[in-house]
Amino acid sequence: MSENEKMFPVGPEVKEALATIKRGVDTLLIESEFEQKLARSMATGKPLRCKLGLDPTAPDIHVGHTVVLNKLRQLQDLGHTVIFLIGDFTAAIGDPSGRNVTRPPLSREQIEINAKTYLDQASLILDREKTEIRYNSEWSDKMTATDMIKLASRYTVARLLERDDFAKRYAEQAPIAMHELLYPLMQGYDSVALHADLELGGSDQRFNLLVGRELQRQYDQEPQCILTMPLLVGLDGVNKMSKSKHNYIGITDKADDMFGKVMSISDALMWDWYDLLSLRSNAEIADLKKQCEEGRNPRDAKVLLAKEIVERFHDKEAADAAEVEFNNRFRAGEMPSEIPEVNVAANDGEIGVGKMIKEAGLCPSVGEANRNIDQGGVRINGERIADRGLKLKAGTYTVQVGKRKWAKVIVH
Amino acid sequence: MSENEKMFPVGPEVKEALATIKRGVDTLLIESEFEQKLARSMATGKPLRCKLGLDPTAPDIHVGHTVVLNKLRQLQDLGHTVIFLIGDFTAAIGDPSGRNVTRPPLSREQIEINAKTYLDQASLILDREKTEIRYNSEWSDKMTATDMIKLASRYTVARLLERDDFAKRYAEQAPIAMHELLYPLMQGYDSVALHADLELGGSDQRFNLLVGRELQRQYDQEPQCILTMPLLVGLDGVNKMSKSKHNYIGITDKADDMFGKVMSISDALMWDWYDLLSLRSNAEIADLKKQCEEGRNPRDAKVLLAKEIVERFHDKEAADAAEVEFNNRFRAGEMPSEIPEVNVAANDGEIGVGKMIKEAGLCPSVGEANRNIDQGGVRINGERIADRGLKLKAGTYTVQVGKRKWAKVIVH
Repeated sequence: MSENEKMFPVGPEVKEALATIKRGVDTLLIESEFEQKLARSMATGKPLRCKLGLDPTAPDIHVGHTVVLNKLRQLQDLGHTVIFLIGDFTAAIGDPSGRNVTRPPLSREQIEINAKTYLDQASLILDREKTEIRYNSEWSDKMTATDMIKLASRYTVARLLERDDFAKRYAEQAPIAMHELLYPLMQGYDSVALHADLELGGSDQRFNLLVGRELQRQYDQEPQCILTMPLLVGLDGVNKMSKSKHNYIGITDKADDMFGKVMSISDALMWDWYDLLSLRSNAEIADLKKQCEEGRNPRDAKVLLAKEIVERFHDKEAADAAEVEFNNRFRAGEMPSEIPEVNVAANDGEIGVGKMIKEAGLCPSVGEANRNIDQGGVRINGERIADRGLKLKAGTYTVQVGKRKWAKVIVH
Repeated sequence: MSENEKMFPVGPEVKEALATIKRGVDTLLIESEFEQKLARSMATGKPLRCKLGLDPTAPDIHVGHTVVLNKLRQLQDLGHTVIFLIGDFTAAIGDPSGRNVTRPPLSREQIEINAKTYLDQASLILDREKTEIRYNSEWSDKMTATDMIKLASRYTVARLLERDDFAKRYAEQAPIAMHELLYPLMQGYDSVALHADLELGGSDQRFNLLVGRELQRQYDQEPQCILTMPLLVGLDGVNKMSKSKHNYIGITDKADDMFGKVMSISDALMWDWYDLLSLRSNAEIADLKKQCEEGRNPRDAKVLLAKEIVERFHDKEAADAAEVEFNNRFRAGEMPSEIPEVNVAANDGEIGVGKMIKEAGLCPSVGEANRNIDQGGVRINGERIADRGLKLKAGTYTVQVGKRKWAKVIVH
């Protein structure tokens, strides 16, 4: 920030907003600049413009994808403007070299469908009224080759090749097509077109967000700050949440499943999830944590989080009902707060219930497992199992055998 | 060339045309492909499309710049189409990074003036009727950012960075702006737009011409062949002809100057000039060379070359008159065939005639030089000098003191 720009006073309100925004973040660059932006916004009443770029290719999101949306919601609640930028321009081009099969060009129709699905899902978190929805085709479609050359003149080849994946491929002499280097510039230019004050992304987006910051400077704009969020660890407490790891909560999961899945995570992971998924204030979370440290059962905190998440993606009644159902199934107090986790391999994509119980170490043999099923002593996700022939697909299951034997089984 | 394409017979006519085209060239790639293109053209009567790209920034050309034009003229005389491509698109952009002061953007008006001047000058060599004049703005102005991304997808970063100057700068960590890598692609795309069969250029253009070849392949066209011409050695017989070396013949030089300058070159350089500047056939040149080897005075061959060059840039009468004037000045037989060459430094851009004669070693002192001037014994470019006070600017001068002392003096 140049010296002749006015400095705004940083009062307790600014400090508190900054602390809320900083909760759970991976990186916030540059913090002192961002503090000034916040202070100016409070002093002038002019909201900050907070951008999230979205590639409209994979509309089906899970809770892990909502981490950055939660951060945007916090920004909205602090009075700032959220810009939901749909990258329809590049999606329509895809990878014209045809080398990258995961990036086929999308038709205008597909893009609109994907974007709508994504927006519908995101609206469960964001305040849609306070969300500015933009498409980068607005300015990119109008761009000529001349504009592109002028844009490209603002950045050096070496700096683009510093991006981790480019640097790696260049060092390994793996081909990088020229247009791949143009995409970060186009994406960065979006920040110029939008006059963004802050851009959010996943931690893997850091480089691209910095390009936007640099280009704004080149175009004589105040550079945006950048904020990256970490990837959410999944139900297994180890891997990043992803569909391929079967450790995820889909945002369209049924309320009971959602509730049960949150209840199955470890206490340590629960506090991370609070930071990344809860919209409770820092003070509330700190208070809850203190209570647990002083002896309150962490299960209570987990119930609160599970209800908050279910309420977000369904509604309050569904959350209440899921809690009642969960308690009915597991008889309050019976389920331990921490459940050991076991990985079990499925053959041909599925596994018989008896075999799964044996492999998970809950019974010494399949025969013993089957006897337990026949006696009504086996519950999966709280539901009593009667059929020995049941096959389970890949996924995460809370399995109870008798009263005291529990496991969280990841079938993969 | 793929195997299922028809092969055309290569008769003596094709061989002869190929020999004419190959005369004096630096590189012809790929010769076997080009031979087939020639053979097909002869068999089908369809002329080859031969492209020369021109940057309309420096319209004032000297004889060194005409080497490639002579090659184009030979191609025209063989019945092929010459495309004179004026790179107005990139000239109008210049270097938008502002780093390169030698490449300021040119206004449309300046471009047209420069292009017209260049064309007027080039028309002294080319058959204007058989020259297709094109501007790359025709297709480049219409290009969108999308088209540019698609074009960029056809080439890898690594291959562009192989260009000598890029490789050097990248290795030295000197900045290369991204748009600099786009220019070779735009230039290469010109060959696609023009369906070029052959592209000509200076030896320093080899890389760019190969980009065009590669892009045509990517756009499913038969790839162009490329032909590069060496740089012409200047009057001093050592350095490439250039204005800064004062060893050049301007194509707007007066007929007498032009004639005298050609007469001043060495015999060895004369034969190189025949290859690069003469439009005489290979057979004629071979015959002339043979005569000289068998005892004919090489001065005769030099006169023929000087007359050909003067005739090209002036006319036949001017060439005849220049010869007569030259003989009058130097009295036939008096001027030696080989004249020693001397470099003399000018102070403040010019040098007094007496000092120049002394520095060139033609007289032991300035006083002696001045006495020779007073006695009418000094000629410069054949013209008797009467004024001791004469100042000479940078340039090449044939200086005669008395009957036997000669020097070609390069004042710089």
